[in-house]
Amino acid sequence: MTWPPLREELRGIEPYGAPQLDVPVQLNVNENPYGPSLACAADIATAVAGAATTLNRYPDREFVELRTALAAYLSTDTPHGVTAEQVWAANGSNEVMLQLLQAFGGPGRVALSFAPTYSMYPEYARDTVTEWVLGRRESDFSLDLARARDLVKERQPSVVLLPSPNNPTGTALPPEAVATLCEAAQDGIVVVDEAYGEFRRTGVPSAVELLPEHRNLVVSRTMSKAFAAAGLRLGYLAADPAICDAIRVVRLPYHLSAVTQAAALAALRHAPELLGKVDELRAERDASVDWLRTRGLQVADSDANFALFGTFADRHAVWQGLLDRGVLIRETGPDGWLRVSIGTADEMMAFKQALTEVLEEEAP
Amino acid sequence: MTWPPLREELRGIEPYGAPQLDVPVQLNVNENPYGPSLACAADIATAVAGAATTLNRYPDREFVELRTALAAYLSTDTPHGVTAEQVWAANGSNEVMLQLLQAFGGPGRVALSFAPTYSMYPEYARDTVTEWVLGRRESDFSLDLARARDLVKERQPSVVLLPSPNNPTGTALPPEAVATLCEAAQDGIVVVDEAYGEFRRTGVPSAVELLPEHRNLVVSRTMSKAFAAAGLRLGYLAADPAICDAIRVVRLPYHLSAVTQAAALAALRHAPELLGKVDELRAERDASVDWLRTRGLQVADSDANFALFGTFADRHAVWQGLLDRGVLIRETGPDGWLRVSIGTADEMMAFKQALTEVLEEEAP
Repeated sequence: MTWPPLREELRGIEPYGAPQLDVPVQLNVNENPYGPSLACAADIATAVAGAATTLNRYPDREFVELRTALAAYLSTDTPHGVTAEQVWAANGSNEVMLQLLQAFGGPGRVALSFAPTYSMYPEYARDTVTEWVLGRRESDFSLDLARARDLVKERQPSVVLLPSPNNPTGTALPPEAVATLCEAAQDGIVVVDEAYGEFRRTGVPSAVELLPEHRNLVVSRTMSKAFAAAGLRLGYLAADPAICDAIRVVRLPYHLSAVTQAAALAALRHAPELLGKVDELRAERDASVDWLRTRGLQVADSDANFALFGTFADRHAVWQGLLDRGVLIRETGPDGWLRVSIGTADEMMAFKQALTEVLEEEAP
Repeated sequence: MTWPPLREELRGIEPYGAPQLDVPVQLNVNENPYGPSLACAADIATAVAGAATTLNRYPDREFVELRTALAAYLSTDTPHGVTAEQVWAANGSNEVMLQLLQAFGGPGRVALSFAPTYSMYPEYARDTVTEWVLGRRESDFSLDLARARDLVKERQPSVVLLPSPNNPTGTALPPEAVATLCEAAQDGIVVVDEAYGEFRRTGVPSAVELLPEHRNLVVSRTMSKAFAAAGLRLGYLAADPAICDAIRVVRLPYHLSAVTQAAALAALRHAPELLGKVDELRAERDASVDWLRTRGLQVADSDANFALFGTFADRHAVWQGLLDRGVLIRETGPDGWLRVSIGTADEMMAFKQALTEVLEEEAP
């Protein structure tokens, strides 16, 4: 017997995660480059000080105040409004996803998505013993809706994972795709993962608008990206209240600490500030996509705060060349592509300069 | 098809958790009744303020500073010391346990414990599709070591869960039991759950001392009980570094937020204060056990901060009678028994007075 006695299918697997390197320009994990103001940080600290005075007590297991605040925030994205009973939250949207698969996946059930997509999805399936089925996106990373619908009808997944915008390609789903796949899935759950939703281009609606029409639709979000609070680890979803209630059967009791609840509530009170750089980042994204294209590179259309570009015969060499110049991006996505997060104007300048040097070196 | 489409085995199950009721005397979830000092709460807030200034960034995925601090704390319980590489942590010891079963349990594998015991254990097994096997404790809630060893040898569990002190009975395991079962389990993991470890009676060693002798031994702890920080949701374990490393394959990336890491580090700096009431609570426990016995009740010997007492023909009536008098205890454990957490001297006085009234009413 090998030591330690890991489950057979886990042996030799590297833990998920981008390298955490201390370099000047960090454009690898799609963080918002702008930190909170001192006033916001101080408000978070004050909220935590309040929670800390009763730290010996367990937190509110149903986190009613936080669910109410998240519902109010989501209500700005839909004319139909969102209630606290429609909201669930956990330590990062990856815990939300794991809980969804614990509740609705499992042995004998199928979870389905379309590649290339977020590389944690198959881990949620693996860790819940759910069969993982992967359809394909088109060469421009969009979905062929007829083919996608056919695959859903054929495999009858109990959970469909539809990131919009997709990671690592940045591709948004049109509302009709969400509607079509919700219908095709029948009583399967369709999760539209809007981790990057706030970065979508003008005119692209949030799937939150479609909730009243599809009881099997789940829209997940995170405070890690546009909301500039990756350090908080707060993911959440909106869905039929019966779905939120069902997740309670598998959630670990008291999964959201009193400290997390207090800090997230304080951050939500600062939503306008924390989201205040989204327009600037969208403009920087569009400019970065244009610049990469003028360099003769392929770039996927992006509704997110990153761009997937390529292709390179040796993408690792390009990644390493950038890192040697103090710019950390992500070696992810289909072969030959690289992903860069959108940083500040100065960071993007450093990225462009470093990439120019690397490309000249690679192709003299 | 029923809606929502929960996994078949989850249907109709009530989510785990004691009632969260707002009553004057809360003796139901084994919290430490003493909150942190204002100085401690302020230090936690200051630490969080520091973390909040870079809240837009993901936290240290390996939480090295926190692991180092937890190792230093655990080292006070063993002459052999504990290193950071031997430590793992998560959002509450229930997430630690889930991760252990995700890594070392799963389909075709067995997890084993001895009833009556902590009612979350079978949920970890259920959520990881691990077969759940339950041996029996003796009538005094101790383990018959020969029988326990035989069961382990027969069923070859990949994970054995051994709470010490046990919840809800308060029963501690002698060191020879841990050693015997570690040997019997061969390459199965033996988890000694010391959630209530700091309340053990003088002369009862921690299983942390035994780590150098058994590479398959895992000792789990929590900051929720003696450490008076249930609101923080910080559980941890000490084990062979290979076990900690293996858990990294199944942990969700960045599972410990920057806020949690900062708050836990600050709380650990106040360990002497936060643990300062443990002796008082142990004395209160012993006095409460004695008092219950003078009332003619059976009480399990307890090394924890609670006491299991009984038996009652209608325990629910006793529980309700106490609640009607503003005292909330827990209706848990074997039929006819009730569990009371050890609170302050005033709270225990209120409990005794209420119980006296209820017993007089029940048996006039």
